[in-house]
Amino acid sequence: MQATVLYGPRDIRFEQRAEPKILKPTDAIIRLSVTCVCGSDLWPYRGIQAVTEPQAMGHEYCGIIEEVGSAVKTVKPGQFVIGSFCISDNTCPNCRVGYQSGCQNLEFMTGAQAPYARVPLADGTLVATPEIPSNDLLPSLLAVSDVLGTGWFAADAANVKPGSTVVVVGDGAVGLLGVLSAKQMGAERIIAMSRHESRQKLAKEFGATDIVSERGEEGIARIKELTKGIGADSTLECVGSLESMMQAIRSTRPGGSVGFVGVPHDALLDLQPVFFSLVRLHGGPAPVRRYLPNLIKLVLDGRINPGKVFDLILPLDQVADGYRAMDERRAIKTLLRPNGAN
Amino acid sequence: MQATVLYGPRDIRFEQRAEPKILKPTDAIIRLSVTCVCGSDLWPYRGIQAVTEPQAMGHEYCGIIEEVGSAVKTVKPGQFVIGSFCISDNTCPNCRVGYQSGCQNLEFMTGAQAPYARVPLADGTLVATPEIPSNDLLPSLLAVSDVLGTGWFAADAANVKPGSTVVVVGDGAVGLLGVLSAKQMGAERIIAMSRHESRQKLAKEFGATDIVSERGEEGIARIKELTKGIGADSTLECVGSLESMMQAIRSTRPGGSVGFVGVPHDALLDLQPVFFSLVRLHGGPAPVRRYLPNLIKLVLDGRINPGKVFDLILPLDQVADGYRAMDERRAIKTLLRPNGAN
Repeated sequence: MQATVLYGPRDIRFEQRAEPKILKPTDAIIRLSVTCVCGSDLWPYRGIQAVTEPQAMGHEYCGIIEEVGSAVKTVKPGQFVIGSFCISDNTCPNCRVGYQSGCQNLEFMTGAQAPYARVPLADGTLVATPEIPSNDLLPSLLAVSDVLGTGWFAADAANVKPGSTVVVVGDGAVGLLGVLSAKQMGAERIIAMSRHESRQKLAKEFGATDIVSERGEEGIARIKELTKGIGADSTLECVGSLESMMQAIRSTRPGGSVGFVGVPHDALLDLQPVFFSLVRLHGGPAPVRRYLPNLIKLVLDGRINPGKVFDLILPLDQVADGYRAMDERRAIKTLLRPNGAN
Repeated sequence: MQATVLYGPRDIRFEQRAEPKILKPTDAIIRLSVTCVCGSDLWPYRGIQAVTEPQAMGHEYCGIIEEVGSAVKTVKPGQFVIGSFCISDNTCPNCRVGYQSGCQNLEFMTGAQAPYARVPLADGTLVATPEIPSNDLLPSLLAVSDVLGTGWFAADAANVKPGSTVVVVGDGAVGLLGVLSAKQMGAERIIAMSRHESRQKLAKEFGATDIVSERGEEGIARIKELTKGIGADSTLECVGSLESMMQAIRSTRPGGSVGFVGVPHDALLDLQPVFFSLVRLHGGPAPVRRYLPNLIKLVLDGRINPGKVFDLILPLDQVADGYRAMDERRAIKTLLRPNGAN
């Protein structure tokens, strides 16, 4: 098969690779219905995260099961499945308290920007839909796999409750779906920080009540102005830089919460201002597996349409263009269609 | 009157000072029944926190009201009162959600290592006992003012619940009272990290079920061993150094919580390991005012005896010896008796 491999900074190739095989009895092989490029793929693409050897890319996925290993019991060939980017056994003590992204047997999914992919720990990782979903639902079901699940965790980790005042820092796909998540959780006021018109528009469509385009000191002053000088109950940090983290902390009231889901890079946080802010911090790789059943149902019931974050759709063999468009911020998120699918 | 002033590193003087006066209609003047030296007083004493001008020391206090300003309504002369080290109006939006240490009119108490002290915002800060308490209860009532309230907040911020497994990092007075607090909140297992025999003994008396004397990697390995490889549900960080913070984070399970109450000094926390730990962080100056009514009642009912942390009792005029004993770790905490009181 032809699949996506990153060789070095901005060197994405779509090239011949061996088809995946069952390596362990707990594996499944899936045929991807749709796949996509993640904001976190841009870290190694941009050379900010070192690429020491060619990497099979892609960790967001949904599709039809082709084959399962002998130990797999809960899913079977022919079913449509969605899994988390975090591979988990879903039985260890960390999984049992809902932290599958801290599974004692954790692996990270790779190689999903391809027609076929191997999913380890299939029983613990994959959730099947009751029926094969229609093609128009595929983008939203794919979004559940990571970008919605991550935005949802940001809102959950930030303790969003009915009536909450929420700030969302970051207008990438995760931030935008953080807005959608906060709305679903009953937030009364959702302030999206964004300077891009098309993203502001989508944020409003997802439920943002206010847009703040200022950043830094001015952005914080604007948030304080909008919240009677108090700050937000909950802030979603969806970038991963030190600046965005401080923006989030300083936008939040004492006793309020910051949910942070942007992977931090070179971020050394001075604890003293955090201490005096009295803000709660919780974040990390999202335990998407915990949320999958609920989020899949919301999509199948037509109650949410997170697939709207895909504003560029390409055939899989044009994956390099998909990376480029996101790198240059021409696209929010690129959906890729494997050849012959749909 | 004679009172305590810090002039520079290790230069504590007990010298003539003007008696405090009502400066604002919301002030009260109290006659201290007992007072004490705080672990945080050692930061400027040791020169780690700069002393730019002579500082009137002391922020833990309880005593009899001598006089109140014209606007004070809830307390009156002759009453025995306890207040928080954080001066708060107890009416602003931050106070109303229980974060009086983030009060919009926040001040920090000073000048309590003296026979008399001025307490600003008396209505919002002070809580009176129903009667004048007996002398034997004074150390425990004094402890409520900061050191117990702070240990209690550490346990609360770390989400200690009935049945929890708890780790306490730091065996100073706050850490020891963090043990007591976790016990009161129903923790099933309380692992105190301590290398000092007398402190280990007190930790056990307060409810510690296990003692870990190792630190760093070995300490973390020992905690993991004691928790089936998972880590604690809740960890109380009661030191304020980067090392103790990382010790706390790495001792906690994914989804577990670290409550941190040691004032951080020169602590730049790398967010990436925090991210992948999936641990919750919450801390800051304790909102003692929120806890005062409950903690005072627990002391008056004889259910807790936090005053046991005072292992050195001196007349106030020997305050310099009290600092020295704590600096040299010969004493856990020094209680000071103003001349003529008790």
